[in-house]
Amino acid sequence: MSTTDQHPDFFARHAALLHKAAERTADRGYWTPHPETPSTSAYGADAAAQGEAAFRDLLDGRFPLDGHPTTGTVPAAEVSPYGFPLGVSYPQLVPELAVATAKAAATAWRAASPDTRAGVAAEILARLNAASFEIAHAVQHTTGQPFVMAFQAGGPHAQDRGLEAVAYAWEAQRRHPATARWTKPRRRGGPLVMDKTYTPVGRGVAVLVACNTFPTWNGYPGLFASLVTGNPVVVKPHRGAVLPLAITVRIAREVLAEAGFDPDVVLLAASRPEERIATDLATHPDVRIVDFTGSSEFGDWLEANARQAVVHTEKAGLNTVVVDSADDYAGLLRNLAFSLALYSGQMCTTPQNILVPRDGFPTDQGPRTADEFAADLGSALDDLLGDPARAAATLGAIVNGGVLARLEEAAALGRTAHPSRTVEHPDHPDAVVRTPLVALLDAEADEKTYTSEWFGPVSFVIATDDTAHSLRVLHDTVRRHGALTACVYATDEGVLAATRATALEAGVHLSENLTGDVFPNQSAAFSDFHGTSANPAANATLTDPAFVHSRFSVLQSRRHATTEEQAHVR
Amino acid sequence: MSTTDQHPDFFARHAALLHKAAERTADRGYWTPHPETPSTSAYGADAAAQGEAAFRDLLDGRFPLDGHPTTGTVPAAEVSPYGFPLGVSYPQLVPELAVATAKAAATAWRAASPDTRAGVAAEILARLNAASFEIAHAVQHTTGQPFVMAFQAGGPHAQDRGLEAVAYAWEAQRRHPATARWTKPRRRGGPLVMDKTYTPVGRGVAVLVACNTFPTWNGYPGLFASLVTGNPVVVKPHRGAVLPLAITVRIAREVLAEAGFDPDVVLLAASRPEERIATDLATHPDVRIVDFTGSSEFGDWLEANARQAVVHTEKAGLNTVVVDSADDYAGLLRNLAFSLALYSGQMCTTPQNILVPRDGFPTDQGPRTADEFAADLGSALDDLLGDPARAAATLGAIVNGGVLARLEEAAALGRTAHPSRTVEHPDHPDAVVRTPLVALLDAEADEKTYTSEWFGPVSFVIATDDTAHSLRVLHDTVRRHGALTACVYATDEGVLAATRATALEAGVHLSENLTGDVFPNQSAAFSDFHGTSANPAANATLTDPAFVHSRFSVLQSRRHATTEEQAHVR
Repeated sequence: MSTTDQHPDFFARHAALLHKAAERTADRGYWTPHPETPSTSAYGADAAAQGEAAFRDLLDGRFPLDGHPTTGTVPAAEVSPYGFPLGVSYPQLVPELAVATAKAAATAWRAASPDTRAGVAAEILARLNAASFEIAHAVQHTTGQPFVMAFQAGGPHAQDRGLEAVAYAWEAQRRHPATARWTKPRRRGGPLVMDKTYTPVGRGVAVLVACNTFPTWNGYPGLFASLVTGNPVVVKPHRGAVLPLAITVRIAREVLAEAGFDPDVVLLAASRPEERIATDLATHPDVRIVDFTGSSEFGDWLEANARQAVVHTEKAGLNTVVVDSADDYAGLLRNLAFSLALYSGQMCTTPQNILVPRDGFPTDQGPRTADEFAADLGSALDDLLGDPARAAATLGAIVNGGVLARLEEAAALGRTAHPSRTVEHPDHPDAVVRTPLVALLDAEADEKTYTSEWFGPVSFVIATDDTAHSLRVLHDTVRRHGALTACVYATDEGVLAATRATALEAGVHLSENLTGDVFPNQSAAFSDFHGTSANPAANATLTDPAFVHSRFSVLQSRRHATTEEQAHVR
Repeated sequence: MSTTDQHPDFFARHAALLHKAAERTADRGYWTPHPETPSTSAYGADAAAQGEAAFRDLLDGRFPLDGHPTTGTVPAAEVSPYGFPLGVSYPQLVPELAVATAKAAATAWRAASPDTRAGVAAEILARLNAASFEIAHAVQHTTGQPFVMAFQAGGPHAQDRGLEAVAYAWEAQRRHPATARWTKPRRRGGPLVMDKTYTPVGRGVAVLVACNTFPTWNGYPGLFASLVTGNPVVVKPHRGAVLPLAITVRIAREVLAEAGFDPDVVLLAASRPEERIATDLATHPDVRIVDFTGSSEFGDWLEANARQAVVHTEKAGLNTVVVDSADDYAGLLRNLAFSLALYSGQMCTTPQNILVPRDGFPTDQGPRTADEFAADLGSALDDLLGDPARAAATLGAIVNGGVLARLEEAAALGRTAHPSRTVEHPDHPDAVVRTPLVALLDAEADEKTYTSEWFGPVSFVIATDDTAHSLRVLHDTVRRHGALTACVYATDEGVLAATRATALEAGVHLSENLTGDVFPNQSAAFSDFHGTSANPAANATLTDPAFVHSRFSVLQSRRHATTEEQAHVR
């Protein structure tokens, strides 16, 4: 279909990249084809200006999606956390029409080969990469991320994750041969000879329910895994962050059409403020795959109710740090302060619970009690965020009123060790910018407080009896409530080994003694895994091949080999 | 643990076999290390007599399971479908103790390497293979299978499936490297260098809820997939077919102990007639994996309620045959008659719904209407089953009263085209032996009748308008109700292609024009796939790598590489 004379052969164009990507999923070293720096050397002299202009052109108008089915208009509702309305309206698409259109559009896409689909996906990613500046502005002004982060996480890093999903999904469909000959010897007579085929078949319509803070980074793995395994995708954006995914859908549709496929294989399901279409979409009988990033409440609901589909979720968790000892205490504080401050802690990977022995732990600067550690962490935050311009470039803006309300609630606990501050953004006077709050809690007395997620700039220094106690808290809270990240600071290999064993039992990935320029909330595609499927926080993870395999089945047919065929082979 | 001086190195013993098995999962040609013929040349001159003696020794006594935890005695309850009570009592084990014991026993097993675990599993399979005659008698006299089938399906074929699961599970854990070095170049300063580990960790306690008809064939894939991925397994047999799995558990425990592991990694959870322990086991908070073969009703219940676990089920389905045309009509009838008669149709793979154009279809013996076809099929059954000894060796015995009741219900429909007969078993006068009943239905009028499963010797010739109508019925009934097998008979490649496309959409494996010695209800491990996960009948299938991957997670740790380590590598 896509390889006729009229249509470019995207698989041929990207075959070397795909093979490389598949190789690199296996060795888990450093690799990316998408430069992470928004520099002219990587993206060309005009890319930055053109990308910003493209973004500006989208504001205060109807988002252009040629030929996209629609049932009306979704009025402009997105407001930049930096303080201005985007003014972009979208085509409305009600669930029934979205699912029916996607299903009808997918006939040729389902029948195409995994190679063809991987080629189209790689071309979409290449064009997304070329649009990284446009997407960066869209991500910044829907999520509140600072610009460089919006560029990296919303652009190349999200594209890395998309490509990683493409590589796994493409490889998965090549796990079994397309055909096999089965020749069973018999004691009497010639052998039984059967010819067999094995065909990967997509599960059906996929729905991507995206989040407000990382619409592309969290959305691309599911989107591309579904596409490459032969499924159409209905993209349901968060109403606060439609634009980055609208751009993504526009580009995907362009490439699909050029490749000779129906562009309705990828649809945008934007909805009006009063509509709650995610539940209708996710439980539609023809929807067979759901990807979701967001609250535990809705994620749990989807897992319990969207029973006709496979459901991949990334939900809330209690990211935990165990502090046992330090031989680079200054590095520990710098690293942790940056982790808490980055995007005002509005990351699913930001440490929340920092477990510290109440009566103190050894460091290269002398022993520190939990109280002293909380104060030191506060000072490190002040050092990091003293300059308003640098602070704004690290913190970004608060994404929505829910996060602000939670911050106020945390302050009202009366356990603040280091208060949150308001920062004036040098370029955006209406931006809502806050520094992290650090509260000091007790592991026994305050369990209720720290065993729910305080998404945003709220972290807890939690006093424990000793490191053994900290490890028990790590194990029990993560088993019960989930986590995406865990860290340990310890100078003793025995303590590190014990923590590693605890993390294995709790089912969470571990970072050990991060004191330099790698942070717990960083996850590098093709090397780090994000999520484990071993704790309640997320079953959407590429460590678990079910993330791609659940999107298709391998179906077999078999028949007797004809005598001529047998003779030919023997 | 298992490779110290005191313990044999089972991985070394079986490494070549495991590598071979892993290779053969990939090419899907014919392969087995387990001879399927109960012959002296394959199993030795004394194997048959010794195996039968071992079985006889077990009768009328307490099943020997040294050191197995127990909470009492399960009195003898199994009765051979060939007409005598087995008289075997078992150690009772209540769910709470079963799960707690399995969990506590698994520490070293979880920590062992995938190689070590695969070696132990291969040794268990080797000893099961050596015990194939003992197991064959146990299978025959719990399931009612004829002896040769009980030997093949209960012994070597079940072992093949176990080994196939071992191979997939072992490979899956080697998908990611144990360690990786991540070296990220930076524009300023040296690269960032991190050392990372990736550790497969078992999900937790597994429960195997086995069935009455194929306790080992259906049970081994889940049992061995769980073991190799580091999980202890509580085996909950059907109360009518405990013995084959008790022997399996005994052998598994022997090998585990010899390898230096706690034998309680594999436990038998036998229960008294009044106890319903499967629900308690499957929903226990510490149970993380459930494998089930049996009714749709209980399978659906497990999927909806055992939410703390991954649930792999094989349930009921509507195995369907589309008859469009035949150039070997005699072969078609012979093949289909044998498929219906084998083990009295008490197979999850036996064809039930045979879709035939009402007004006729072309054959090499002239056209046949649906009526005529039903009569021809009846004659073919008579030809096959005319001799009582041969009939008994094909039909086996009816496994339980439920199947007999269903047969009577089918006769009461008043649509019988060919009645079921009672056959006197030449060796077992009390055996309950029945030939298949064939009823003639209409695709429109009788939909209610043929859209539920009639497990046992009941099949329907269903008159349709034409083959296009047959394909619609195939698609719709399989999508809604599931199927493990589908067949087509057609002389035209276009019809075969259309049927293949329909089967892909319906999500069922297809056999085309089987007229010789391969039957729709045969599924050869390492080549054929059994189940698809694409229709409601089964999500327990090795086509879907989730069957093994869902049993473990890969957990990561990372730390900065030390300067010396970096220098060493560079």
